[in-house]
Amino acid sequence: MSRLDPLFAPRGIAVVGASRDPSKLGAVMARSLRAFPGTVVGVNPRDADPAAARYAGVAEAASAAGPIDLAVLCVPASVSAAALTDAAAGGARAVLVCSGGYAEAGGPGVAYQRELVAAAVDAGIALLGPNTSGFLDPARALTATFVPGVASVPPGPVAVVAASGGVNHALAFLLAEAGLGVSLAVGLGNAVDVGAPDVLGHLAADDRTRVVALHVESVDDGPALVAAVRAASARVPVVALVVGRNDVAEFARSHTGALATSWRTTRAALRSAGAVLVDDERALVDAVTALSVLRLPPSAGPAVGVVTAQAGPGLLHVDGLRGRGVPVPAFSAATVSRLGELLPPLTYQANPVDTGRPGPGFGSVLAAVAADPGIDLVSAYALSEPDALDLPGVVDPAAGPLVVGLGGPAEQVRPQRQALRDLGVPSLTSPAALTTAVVALIDDARAQARASAAPPVAPAVVDLPSGELDEDAAKTLLGRLGVRTPPRRACHDRAAAHRALAELPGPLAVKLLDARVVHKSDVGGVHLGVRDAVELDAALDALEGLGAGRFLLESMAPPGVDLLAGASRDAVFGPIVLLGLGGVVAEALADVAVAPATGSPEDAGALADELAGRALLDGFRGGPVADRAALGAVLVALGGVLLARPELESVEINPLRVTVDGLIALDAVVTLREEEHRV
Amino acid sequence: MSRLDPLFAPRGIAVVGASRDPSKLGAVMARSLRAFPGTVVGVNPRDADPAAARYAGVAEAASAAGPIDLAVLCVPASVSAAALTDAAAGGARAVLVCSGGYAEAGGPGVAYQRELVAAAVDAGIALLGPNTSGFLDPARALTATFVPGVASVPPGPVAVVAASGGVNHALAFLLAEAGLGVSLAVGLGNAVDVGAPDVLGHLAADDRTRVVALHVESVDDGPALVAAVRAASARVPVVALVVGRNDVAEFARSHTGALATSWRTTRAALRSAGAVLVDDERALVDAVTALSVLRLPPSAGPAVGVVTAQAGPGLLHVDGLRGRGVPVPAFSAATVSRLGELLPPLTYQANPVDTGRPGPGFGSVLAAVAADPGIDLVSAYALSEPDALDLPGVVDPAAGPLVVGLGGPAEQVRPQRQALRDLGVPSLTSPAALTTAVVALIDDARAQARASAAPPVAPAVVDLPSGELDEDAAKTLLGRLGVRTPPRRACHDRAAAHRALAELPGPLAVKLLDARVVHKSDVGGVHLGVRDAVELDAALDALEGLGAGRFLLESMAPPGVDLLAGASRDAVFGPIVLLGLGGVVAEALADVAVAPATGSPEDAGALADELAGRALLDGFRGGPVADRAALGAVLVALGGVLLARPELESVEINPLRVTVDGLIALDAVVTLREEEHRV
Repeated sequence: MSRLDPLFAPRGIAVVGASRDPSKLGAVMARSLRAFPGTVVGVNPRDADPAAARYAGVAEAASAAGPIDLAVLCVPASVSAAALTDAAAGGARAVLVCSGGYAEAGGPGVAYQRELVAAAVDAGIALLGPNTSGFLDPARALTATFVPGVASVPPGPVAVVAASGGVNHALAFLLAEAGLGVSLAVGLGNAVDVGAPDVLGHLAADDRTRVVALHVESVDDGPALVAAVRAASARVPVVALVVGRNDVAEFARSHTGALATSWRTTRAALRSAGAVLVDDERALVDAVTALSVLRLPPSAGPAVGVVTAQAGPGLLHVDGLRGRGVPVPAFSAATVSRLGELLPPLTYQANPVDTGRPGPGFGSVLAAVAADPGIDLVSAYALSEPDALDLPGVVDPAAGPLVVGLGGPAEQVRPQRQALRDLGVPSLTSPAALTTAVVALIDDARAQARASAAPPVAPAVVDLPSGELDEDAAKTLLGRLGVRTPPRRACHDRAAAHRALAELPGPLAVKLLDARVVHKSDVGGVHLGVRDAVELDAALDALEGLGAGRFLLESMAPPGVDLLAGASRDAVFGPIVLLGLGGVVAEALADVAVAPATGSPEDAGALADELAGRALLDGFRGGPVADRAALGAVLVALGGVLLARPELESVEINPLRVTVDGLIALDAVVTLREEEHRV
Repeated sequence: MSRLDPLFAPRGIAVVGASRDPSKLGAVMARSLRAFPGTVVGVNPRDADPAAARYAGVAEAASAAGPIDLAVLCVPASVSAAALTDAAAGGARAVLVCSGGYAEAGGPGVAYQRELVAAAVDAGIALLGPNTSGFLDPARALTATFVPGVASVPPGPVAVVAASGGVNHALAFLLAEAGLGVSLAVGLGNAVDVGAPDVLGHLAADDRTRVVALHVESVDDGPALVAAVRAASARVPVVALVVGRNDVAEFARSHTGALATSWRTTRAALRSAGAVLVDDERALVDAVTALSVLRLPPSAGPAVGVVTAQAGPGLLHVDGLRGRGVPVPAFSAATVSRLGELLPPLTYQANPVDTGRPGPGFGSVLAAVAADPGIDLVSAYALSEPDALDLPGVVDPAAGPLVVGLGGPAEQVRPQRQALRDLGVPSLTSPAALTTAVVALIDDARAQARASAAPPVAPAVVDLPSGELDEDAAKTLLGRLGVRTPPRRACHDRAAAHRALAELPGPLAVKLLDARVVHKSDVGGVHLGVRDAVELDAALDALEGLGAGRFLLESMAPPGVDLLAGASRDAVFGPIVLLGLGGVVAEALADVAVAPATGSPEDAGALADELAGRALLDGFRGGPVADRAALGAVLVALGGVLLARPELESVEINPLRVTVDGLIALDAVVTLREEEHRV
């Protein structure tokens, strides 16, 4: 039994702060709960009226009406801790606190929240909220929210786990409008006790749930969330909407009292844990529409066959798929030949297939495309034309995975959509919605493939070089990690530098060697293209002018494309790896991709394909091609050092150059954790 | 009277190719037209039956049943020209051809299309299609399409002008689902006669239309489309969806027989003509939902005040607005003080305003924000809570422009949305839809401001330098255009080069001067940092080694950010100007923005803010700030040369450097038009 059963599946519920004034929160909540078939009682010490099922305390209510598992506290923040203690004394094992005025409001609210949490810990009961609109479980006729209208949302396969009560309700309404229902829909609010990981864990035992819609604003325990998403997505798809792409931190803090978490890192961590990411709440509805009916088997690179009955909407759909990087490959010769038999010669028979005005043969076309060995999912668009085509009637569910976009009058389309769903075929209402659904199905198949790959091996523990962590030591570390660096000599005087000039293949880079100077180029600490003793002396003179006592001489690398590759610690999610394009343009674009350091080399190497400037890594204008496996190995090695060495804050290679001879690290910086972080 | 009145407002309609077989196109079309209150007759020479209103020809039909303005041809492509001629002889002044098998199918279809067009020209009648699903005008009960279900779409304020018949229907259904209706919805198909400009012109006299939804796949007459959009958007907003962002050219060609037009240039041309651009068909529905009810006055930079009753959805909305670059500024002191009076202290009273659970005072908050002198539009989100808030009841339409997002059960929200619309307040169903609507309202206000600015002055005619158009001549031209270049000397021998070394401020760039070598750097034709006679001789030796007979010596410019600025000829839209970031990273990202050359310097300068890497132009890492007015002046000057000089193909400055001292052109290439294009 889950710790959250008393909260989400209570035998009896007490509304604490029940009021006769119909506009008060307590009265609204009581109205919301009216349909609940179990016990619902009111508690109001100053207005007890057992005849109206309103008692002076939870204990009184329980002895009169039977067990009360859940107390819904509709009392001011200042007295909520006392109300919780009273409820626990009366036998309640869970409380819901909807009202605000806690940490999110600042001032005395911070103390009220602390007292409330302490009371819950003392009593050992589950606490949802405060500052949330509650939750609903339509199949239990349980609407524990102060928006009674949400009782109209039907039961169904979607669990909503939302950071915000308002978003929980907004999503429930949008799902209902899309013809879907919910198993459980929860708004977490300040999430001082029950958080997203707890609800995801609770859902593990809920076989009504076929997909989870997760809304995230901020995260305080990154590893717990990642573990919960990993466990949940192994069973059902998890679709995540992370807010805060742009600077909304101040408003977000006012909302739940939490600091905004890095949007980029949160998305990367959730994705790595198996979640499908979406960009807004409508994309979320589209994704769960598809994933609540259909889940593709794990696949590293599923491909889509598109069939359309009308060219124009099909073109919109394919344009969208291409923009999202979905493979829409050419068909096999056998498929092309079969389509030639099925379709009149005027139609377009490549991928996409344009059937022209559809007839009963539309199903055979769908089946022919599904049978192509290179196709993992068929995506079809058609306008509803009952005179010409009975789509549910011609679909063969055994032919292969199919998702459909269906335009038409709502009343005509609704029964067709239901019939398709019964066949295991999700349907959407527009080409763009179909695109979002296809992307979600494919992202989920990829996530499953990543999850089912062998778990990464524990990072090898490497010895750190002794002494100061200057560029030479950093490159020694890189060498131990198997990352290639140019031949080099660390020189303590000019004579050593001249010996190095004789020994190293030229031309050389001559650099200031000082761990305290991180941005050497900015201060004139790097001289390139040094070929002879005269040039070396000039370079050494200049470096000595900067106060340099030590020099690094290094063979210059061949030209190539410069990347930034690093590992650092995220305050919430722990060690992460980062890949970006080098140079000031890429920096201005903030063109970087991140992933948890615990991922596989394949996942890390795939970061290259998330970069806006990825064309540069694929032989752009005759340049080199970046080996994704080698790139992944470098990133995983850097991340591994952080996982194995708690005294390190970050390791950064900038630039890591892509050359025709492979990757080579031209500069590296290792940073120790500040004392205060070394607990 | 419009040339298209016989097409869209016919007195009588003949279905040519009427059939007894209910599955045939002619029978479906006759069923679609059944509700039309005017005359509808069938024509079938082989199955005439006047008792069933089916005649041997259009003339027979007209003499029996009254004037036939429109003939709908449901006959094979091979006989359609003859059927058109027969219809015209019978008095028809317009034909609709839905069937395919014309140019889009290739082969004999190309000839059928040519014959059909010739017949229409001979007869002097309007021809819609071929290869379209037709049109509908619900207020006239006129459904001239072979998708009879579209008769369920109600009359309303949206005109749909779609390249594709399928998209026309898909949009009509989506609009109906969003609670909107259409005035006229047209699918253009192959558009061999009636095209988007014609329909836009026809709509000028249609006062039922309050907004136009325009879907574009390809354009053959750019200036005609631009002029039509300009005229239409002066009267009502035009929202445009352009397909083909990604490579879908082959499929697109199979669809309507037309080559895909440049997506980027088409968007730029439509935007410059006053259209609001959207990214997919759902965004189009959101945009017309807003613009069919509300149009802001012209404004160069309208700002938005956000009010939300629930923090979470408000956060999604504000995150979206920030991502789209919508200004959500701080309020005035007076507004802050007024909000302090209206709201409890726990709520967030900046922009966005979080009211907490809303009550009747919500309307006063909306009015207070609308009254802020820095706010042009109020965007509000609320969940429907009839117990707490009657939104239509508290909105003061006189307070200022307002757009609303309203979540809740569909049945509860629908009447509220209607009541709001009657007050001039558009409403959307989700935070993301609200974001799209706000962006559309603001884009339209900006487009109106651009359109109402003074028209650009005609470009000054400059003389082209005589002789070969090498870099020196190109820079002479730039000088005449007022574009700054570094001091330079074109040298015909080494002695001249040494004189130039003495005269020009150093260090110098020494370049090959040869109009035939466009990419000088790639062949080693550029030597930088030349300071003395020894270095100059080395450079000249190397250039002579390349076969150079002439040299360009030039003072080197200070460092800065390099741009690419140019003007070229688009095959469809004519001269355009282009701005991009310089360098290989920007090139790999294809980070360029384009605009018609006929725009104002303000429009051209604003291209800088469309670049992904625009941060680089605003003092990134202590770098220079690009003066938008100066940039606009350069681009307009380059465009002006192309407008004034038909013998030129393009003028490109690469790089145009942004320095602390302003813009300076470091290299320039002028290209003449190929002979075959110089008509």
